[in-house]
Amino acid sequence: MTDFDPTTHPHRRFNPLTNEHILVSPHRTKRPWLGQTEPPQTTALPEYDPKCYLCPGNSRTSGEKNPNYDHTFTFENDFAAILHPPAPEAPVPAHPLLTVEPVYGACDVVIFHPRHDLTMARLSKSEIGTVINEWIRIYTSRGTEPGIEYVQIFENKGSMMGCSNPHPHGQVWSMSTIPSIPAQELKSLKRYAQSQIPSQDAPRENACLLCEYAQAEINTPGDTGRIVVSNEHWLAVVPWWATWPFEILLLPYHRHIGSIDELNTEEKEAFADILYRITRRYDNLFSCSFAYSMGIHQRPVPAKATVDPADDDNKYAHLHLHFDPPLLRSATVRKFLVGYEMMGEAQRDLTPEQAATRLRGCSEVHYLENP
Amino acid sequence: MTDFDPTTHPHRRFNPLTNEHILVSPHRTKRPWLGQTEPPQTTALPEYDPKCYLCPGNSRTSGEKNPNYDHTFTFENDFAAILHPPAPEAPVPAHPLLTVEPVYGACDVVIFHPRHDLTMARLSKSEIGTVINEWIRIYTSRGTEPGIEYVQIFENKGSMMGCSNPHPHGQVWSMSTIPSIPAQELKSLKRYAQSQIPSQDAPRENACLLCEYAQAEINTPGDTGRIVVSNEHWLAVVPWWATWPFEILLLPYHRHIGSIDELNTEEKEAFADILYRITRRYDNLFSCSFAYSMGIHQRPVPAKATVDPADDDNKYAHLHLHFDPPLLRSATVRKFLVGYEMMGEAQRDLTPEQAATRLRGCSEVHYLENP
Ligand SMILES: O=P(O)(O)O[C@H]1O[C@H](CO)[C@@H](O)[C@H](O)[C@H]1O
Ligand SMILES: O=P(O)(O)O[C@H]1O[C@H](CO)[C@@H](O)[C@H](O)[C@H]1O
Repeated sequence: MTDFDPTTHPHRRFNPLTNEHILVSPHRTKRPWLGQTEPPQTTALPEYDPKCYLCPGNSRTSGEKNPNYDHTFTFENDFAAILHPPAPEAPVPAHPLLTVEPVYGACDVVIFHPRHDLTMARLSKSEIGTVINEWIRIYTSRGTEPGIEYVQIFENKGSMMGCSNPHPHGQVWSMSTIPSIPAQELKSLKRYAQSQIPSQDAPRENACLLCEYAQAEINTPGDTGRIVVSNEHWLAVVPWWATWPFEILLLPYHRHIGSIDELNTEEKEAFADILYRITRRYDNLFSCSFAYSMGIHQRPVPAKATVDPADDDNKYAHLHLHFDPPLLRSATVRKFLVGYEMMGEAQRDLTPEQAATRLRGCSEVHYLENP
Repeated sequence: MTDFDPTTHPHRRFNPLTNEHILVSPHRTKRPWLGQTEPPQTTALPEYDPKCYLCPGNSRTSGEKNPNYDHTFTFENDFAAILHPPAPEAPVPAHPLLTVEPVYGACDVVIFHPRHDLTMARLSKSEIGTVINEWIRIYTSRGTEPGIEYVQIFENKGSMMGCSNPHPHGQVWSMSTIPSIPAQELKSLKRYAQSQIPSQDAPRENACLLCEYAQAEINTPGDTGRIVVSNEHWLAVVPWWATWPFEILLLPYHRHIGSIDELNTEEKEAFADILYRITRRYDNLFSCSFAYSMGIHQRPVPAKATVDPADDDNKYAHLHLHFDPPLLRSATVRKFLVGYEMMGEAQRDLTPEQAATRLRGCSEVHYLENP
């Protein structure tokens, strides 16, 4: 029998955060693509667009006018998916399978920069630092509002990821319940911390799944590994269980850090440095503005002094970011997660190691700034 | 405090099959859409396309020639995601978080009809019956091959759902493991069957979650309910926990049926009838060829005589089909399940009841056949 070769043999890998498997079919990249292609994200945009509702000084749908902001600017979404309290009481269900749970909270839009034509991949490290500080400010203020149990910071970048305005911005949805995906992640982190070490029959004693995973990646020999780039405090890897072709998991690895408000000055600077480096590599991969959805997973809300750490399941959280980009082969050919992926399980066409090798080979000088 | 109104108040609903919640934000449909639009799926296609590798008599990438088939035709995918056995042994993992599981099996392509320009929505009931018989044949033959533990029948329809050839066809992936999503569904069905009835403190005694859910839908007053269409044996509903705007759950409701090979002649005819009726309504909703991913969930493989029913967790399966269509507002405006949905949980912009009302209002005479 032949030896197992991950670049030839179909196999499954396990995602310990979501408890789901990924089917890896690396030989499948040879398949010709005859399907839908995406418009390339390469159009030149003006620095200021008089019709953009996010540009400084312009009016939004609500009629309100943006200030002449010169760094970040945050406002409440005019079409929020979640509304402020009070929410009505849940009605009595007609059947146990037909229950509803009212949800309340707030949806903020965070503009990263006044210039319409930039993205995070074109900002300086200090401008990215300003975005990080704004995320920390919102996480801390929304996360301590009465009844708020969860704050989700995310960005949809590129029209292919449902973003309807190229002006660089992200969103923050804060709400009265923990959503399904982070709830599952927290459960997995807690279970890991309370489990036994296989083969040693000894308790893990609160070890953090993500701290241990980062160490396992660091211990994997370099050129066969999944690390894209790292600095003193942060590690960017194509995770062992990546679903999207060039997915990145970004996490601090020097110590167990629950949330962005716990980062010290040096860790924040290193955070800006690594965001700068991975977003530039992304754009350089296919010489286009690389589309993705990005999200921060962390403690659902900042630690509350009134909660006894012994009863606090949120303490198992370890700060990390997911970057989920759809492009597979070029600026116009994406991976579709459809039929089998929606009915069976996620499936990918190149190995995480192959994706990491490609991203390691990319320059950190942005292709548009290349003289 | 105001009363709860599902068409105004953001709320969450629970999906008992996947164990995840859906955030419903019905007021959000008022938001103007400025983002990416899809090319309308309305182009007229020829009945026969000499360049199509699925048309009768034409050659495929492998060099093989399709026969001059006149009903359905099945062949193995030239770019299969899973390969035939033997698979190599799993290597010893470098770390417990880095394990692989080799997978083997087969990927079949099932052409529904010789005509290049048709889709299921344009087939007669007897032609749909031929497709059903072919699904049963493949499910039975692949599902009894040595080592095969799961057979996934699905269809990606429309370029927006990653389908690279409009010639009407679906796929069947058969494999040595049960994928994550049906594994989770089976777990949920088993847990339900073994649970207690709330408030009565009595065991459910193997009640089927989906049989009981179908009854709950039938008992919901008609014009406020989620049933799109039903016949003697089958029920098509926009499920209480629908994620996609016009998602449909299709299931037999007269008796507990594990898989398509258990359908009797009448139930098969009723299956063709209801597929005919829902696919036509779908096309008529926005007067276009309505894109979707469809999948059949059922017993992972046919019942084995050698397995004692008492040890057989697959017996909890209840045959059902998921239709997941992305369009939201028109033939060109889709719902993007991105940022918040990928990081938090699924979110929808109209209630399942509103979607069902729209689909109930659609004709079953196809708009292209309308004189
Ligand atoms: O096999 P096809 O139709 O070429 O490919 C399509 O369906 C597959 C199964 O859902 C997906 O993995 C592919 O991303 C999609 O493009
Ligand atoms: O709020 P936006 O940017 O207009 O909308 C976008 O992001 C939301 C949150 O991920 C999604 O629900 C929408 O489908 C998407 O188009």
